[in-house]
Amino acid sequence: MNACIRAIVRTACFYGYGVIGIKNGYKGLVNGAFVPLKVGSVGNIIQRGGTMLGSSRSKEFLTKSGRKRAYEFLKAHRVSHLITLGGDGTFRGASIFSKEFPIKVVGVPCTIDNDIGGTDFCIGFDTAVNTAVECIDRIRDTADSHGRVFVIEVMGRNTGHLALETALAVGAEFVVVPEVKFNLKSLIKKIQAGIDRGKSGSIVIVAEAEEPGRAFPISKSIQKFIRRDVRTSILGHLQRGGSPSGRDRNLASRLGSQAVQCLSGGSRQLMVAIKNEKVVVRALGQGIKIRRRAELSNLKLIHILSV
Amino acid sequence: MNACIRAIVRTACFYGYGVIGIKNGYKGLVNGAFVPLKVGSVGNIIQRGGTMLGSSRSKEFLTKSGRKRAYEFLKAHRVSHLITLGGDGTFRGASIFSKEFPIKVVGVPCTIDNDIGGTDFCIGFDTAVNTAVECIDRIRDTADSHGRVFVIEVMGRNTGHLALETALAVGAEFVVVPEVKFNLKSLIKKIQAGIDRGKSGSIVIVAEAEEPGRAFPISKSIQKFIRRDVRTSILGHLQRGGSPSGRDRNLASRLGSQAVQCLSGGSRQLMVAIKNEKVVVRALGQGIKIRRRAELSNLKLIHILSV
Amino acid sequence: MNACIRAIVRTACFYGYGVIGIKNGYKGLVNGAFVPLKVGSVGNIIQRGGTMLGSSRSKEFLTKSGRKRAYEFLKAHRVSHLITLGGDGTFRGASIFSKEFPIKVVGVPCTIDNDIGGTDFCIGFDTAVNTAVECIDRIRDTADSHGRVFVIEVMGRNTGHLALETALAVGAEFVVVPEVKFNLKSLIKKIQAGIDRGKSGSIVIVAEAEEPGRAFPISKSIQKFIRRDVRTSILGHLQRGGSPSGRDRNLASRLGSQAVQCLSGGSRQLMVAIKNEKVVVRALGQGIKIRRRAELSNLKLIHILSV
Amino acid sequence: MNACIRAIVRTACFYGYGVIGIKNGYKGLVNGAFVPLKVGSVGNIIQRGGTMLGSSRSKEFLTKSGRKRAYEFLKAHRVSHLITLGGDGTFRGASIFSKEFPIKVVGVPCTIDNDIGGTDFCIGFDTAVNTAVECIDRIRDTADSHGRVFVIEVMGRNTGHLALETALAVGAEFVVVPEVKFNLKSLIKKIQAGIDRGKSGSIVIVAEAEEPGRAFPISKSIQKFIRRDVRTSILGHLQRGGSPSGRDRNLASRLGSQAVQCLSGGSRQLMVAIKNEKVVVRALGQGIKIRRRAELSNLKLIHILSV
Repeated sequence: MNACIRAIVRTACFYGYGVIGIKNGYKGLVNGAFVPLKVGSVGNIIQRGGTMLGSSRSKEFLTKSGRKRAYEFLKAHRVSHLITLGGDGTFRGASIFSKEFPIKVVGVPCTIDNDIGGTDFCIGFDTAVNTAVECIDRIRDTADSHGRVFVIEVMGRNTGHLALETALAVGAEFVVVPEVKFNLKSLIKKIQAGIDRGKSGSIVIVAEAEEPGRAFPISKSIQKFIRRDVRTSILGHLQRGGSPSGRDRNLASRLGSQAVQCLSGGSRQLMVAIKNEKVVVRALGQGIKIRRRAELSNLKLIHILSV
Repeated sequence: MNACIRAIVRTACFYGYGVIGIKNGYKGLVNGAFVPLKVGSVGNIIQRGGTMLGSSRSKEFLTKSGRKRAYEFLKAHRVSHLITLGGDGTFRGASIFSKEFPIKVVGVPCTIDNDIGGTDFCIGFDTAVNTAVECIDRIRDTADSHGRVFVIEVMGRNTGHLALETALAVGAEFVVVPEVKFNLKSLIKKIQAGIDRGKSGSIVIVAEAEEPGRAFPISKSIQKFIRRDVRTSILGHLQRGGSPSGRDRNLASRLGSQAVQCLSGGSRQLMVAIKNEKVVVRALGQGIKIRRRAELSNLKLIHILSV
Repeated sequence: MNACIRAIVRTACFYGYGVIGIKNGYKGLVNGAFVPLKVGSVGNIIQRGGTMLGSSRSKEFLTKSGRKRAYEFLKAHRVSHLITLGGDGTFRGASIFSKEFPIKVVGVPCTIDNDIGGTDFCIGFDTAVNTAVECIDRIRDTADSHGRVFVIEVMGRNTGHLALETALAVGAEFVVVPEVKFNLKSLIKKIQAGIDRGKSGSIVIVAEAEEPGRAFPISKSIQKFIRRDVRTSILGHLQRGGSPSGRDRNLASRLGSQAVQCLSGGSRQLMVAIKNEKVVVRALGQGIKIRRRAELSNLKLIHILSV
Repeated sequence: MNACIRAIVRTACFYGYGVIGIKNGYKGLVNGAFVPLKVGSVGNIIQRGGTMLGSSRSKEFLTKSGRKRAYEFLKAHRVSHLITLGGDGTFRGASIFSKEFPIKVVGVPCTIDNDIGGTDFCIGFDTAVNTAVECIDRIRDTADSHGRVFVIEVMGRNTGHLALETALAVGAEFVVVPEVKFNLKSLIKKIQAGIDRGKSGSIVIVAEAEEPGRAFPISKSIQKFIRRDVRTSILGHLQRGGSPSGRDRNLASRLGSQAVQCLSGGSRQLMVAIKNEKVVVRALGQGIKIRRRAELSNLKLIHILSV
């Protein structure tokens, strides 16, 4: 997100806008916590994970009175445009807010779940995939040395984007995603086939879905049928943070810059997006109406390539 | 490339084809150096840089007699289809070979130069960007601590793809690419402006263009006008090798698998490619006729974001 | 361990010994599973995590009859010396085996727990620290952005070596180790003091001690007293595997080479070790009699430096 | 160095001292450029490469009048103790300064050259080794794939510490250090033997010695005798910067903290050091009188292990 904040601030300065940064997301908007941002405020942050402005969930912004306070704050500081970075929840908040009050909003899709509609990629997804891949490469060393089955849970909320991309990249034997009914029998068959062919270790990737911990019962089920050590690993917050990949930094730079450039138009609710490698501007509603679907054709590919 | 070799071998096995791997590219084709490849031959390689089959330039394959020997070898082993991985030169060789002899070829675009036509990305490019970014992040630590200007040369042959992507991602002040006439005056002006604004260090990215070493004279020219230490760094072969990024592994897996699947068609000269995030099949000629153009709009973005 | 296997094989070849590698540790010794190892067998493995020979627990080797089978196997192949790589359990097994049968053993201390006596460092420890540090740096990005307390569990069995080294390196606010009675009150006080001073996030490192999962109840206890989100992360198997650090490769190379060089002596039970940066040879018993103590003076340093 | 600055500031605050940070080393001392440092000033820097205070060479501090200005500045701000971080030159400057003016100095050995006497390790060395190893692992991928000889130059000024540690860790075939007369014949013999045995690639590590660029003539000489592509790579500034290793952070924390604790004693010229894994205090002169010798016994080990 820092790369995106940098792009927003510097593009805004380039075009002569003033910018303030709201601390901790909507919480800061409600409480009026902000920092003035200038060209120099965002120096030397492009390579850093996390966000210099902080992030937080705000219960108050979910209420009308909370949003009113947010609007009063913006009005008092003569702010007329709001650029919001985040996922589904952030976009919904922005949409409601902009309908209620005369503030123009532009959403920038930032979520490792990669499930915002209308864009091919969300900022943070590529880095999360690389981090997960790096971690699982290490685990595979142990899986292979000890002849173990590892069930590894990755993030992704209700979508299998992160799980599918990661599973393909680490050469996993099987992947469990929310979009497809879990079939233990196929899973066991696949792992057993690998063992029969002489494979030393096996990797199963599980998307966390509703809440973390789903990998544990799956491990137990496997252990009943497979005569190998079965271990569980929850990547959890490891997948966030860390220095962003080149691709994510550039996506963030391009989308952030575009977000500023579309402030001058008349539309009140926009989002910036990447489609077919081009930066585009869409109605904000597109981001929330349709959830981006995971590429389920990868399931077959993962199966074929991990024989 | 290993992820791609794995995908080719396993997809081929899945569909019942036999596969052999040619050692050291066209050199091995001419000399008949090969290894039989089975499902197990490509285990545990997806995370490794380089290529298990080796790579080499072959003068003999540039001659008709060399290619004839290559054909005799394939004929003797009843090989009717050839999948070649590489860049411009590899594609040209495949095209000529397939015109001269009854061998069907499929090209898979693999080059960190990212300049093959008809595809949005070549395998290896994303990893090379990430590696360059990681290296330059380290150099920036020194640039900032010591208040220095660093001129850093990256690869990319006659195109600025790698230089532009890297420059944007590291927040470089200036980038020199073959596509645009080099303007020393603008460069000096930009660096001086950064110093005047209080920046501690500056980064200039130079695409190697014709041959390595172009960064040295540029450094010297800068030193004449700027009262700071100016240093040069040639990333060179560091940009190749290393464990591939998640994105590159998946691109390689998808393209490699598709390459096998299009063997059964009637066409004699094909290439696989990624366009708008979809895997597509094209005529091989498309890859070599038009060189993929670098995204020069990034130049302005780099300028705006590094004020 | 691969760097150590390489050193053993190549030093042995240099001095004219023949070498075989036992697969999966004592399990392979009992079952007679081995591979002949030559100079070329250990090429290109120095940079790889895990072990090319595999690793496993063997219940049979814990029995006299199992060890007898192991001895019969070695005798049949005219093997007179055994070099074993591992931790406490491996060393104990070697000691008993060598007392019962005429096989000379040399132990090489390899464990991320770093608790073998008689040596300053065990192979694998430095890499495990670096891996944990890298992972926790990423988590800190989230801790700081979201203003959270993270309780992170690291390995280390009954010792706090890994926890202490990691805690100091990531700037943790508190560390819980088996050597010191856990004091929740101090922990709460420290975290609250940090929050009062304006710290955005806090990190608590917990050594797993008896069995994984100890971090969960500690998190819950903290949550009762601290008005911030408290999250738990278990690093688990992520800390194993991965390309070894330079220091670990060199320690492994030096100890492995020395292990071969001390085969010619008369002693039946030896271990190689690093003391004061010098490679030394000790009686095997030293490695198991006294467990290496963690540097508890680091506790105070961690406290002072994380105010 | 940031980890060390953090340790100094926080230990000083813990014991009730006031601290200011001098910008850009002796240059800032002469010009009176400084920042007040408090507990919060050094938050979130332990994981960052470079130094937050900047670094620079100062010609003025080499003159008596320059040092006088430095003293006047310190006197004006009632500073009585100076902790200096750096290598040989920094230590010499501190020693002269402290003899001329009533300022007590403590030197902390920080140099990737690792050549300060009286200490087993200097801060930064371990990170530089790991960075070089990571880079060369990547280059080896290309060396092996293309069957090339790579001559890679690493830093280290007049000592072979960095070259030797790196060469052993990457499994280099040969290493050229300033301490030993270069023997081209042995080098050629070694590489040729590797090729004859079937090795795909070869790595030669060269310490830069007097000035960068020594690797180029060595490459040329090799090319005359070896029928393989010989390439050169200068790691240069890549070896500096980057997030420090766990070991370096802890060494920096321990030495920095000790530096503050020995301020209260009567001695005027001290250094802190690590000997046999213990933090010790020495006379400053020990750091500069005797240059730390590289471990030349590693030369033989490198030879044996890379057959």
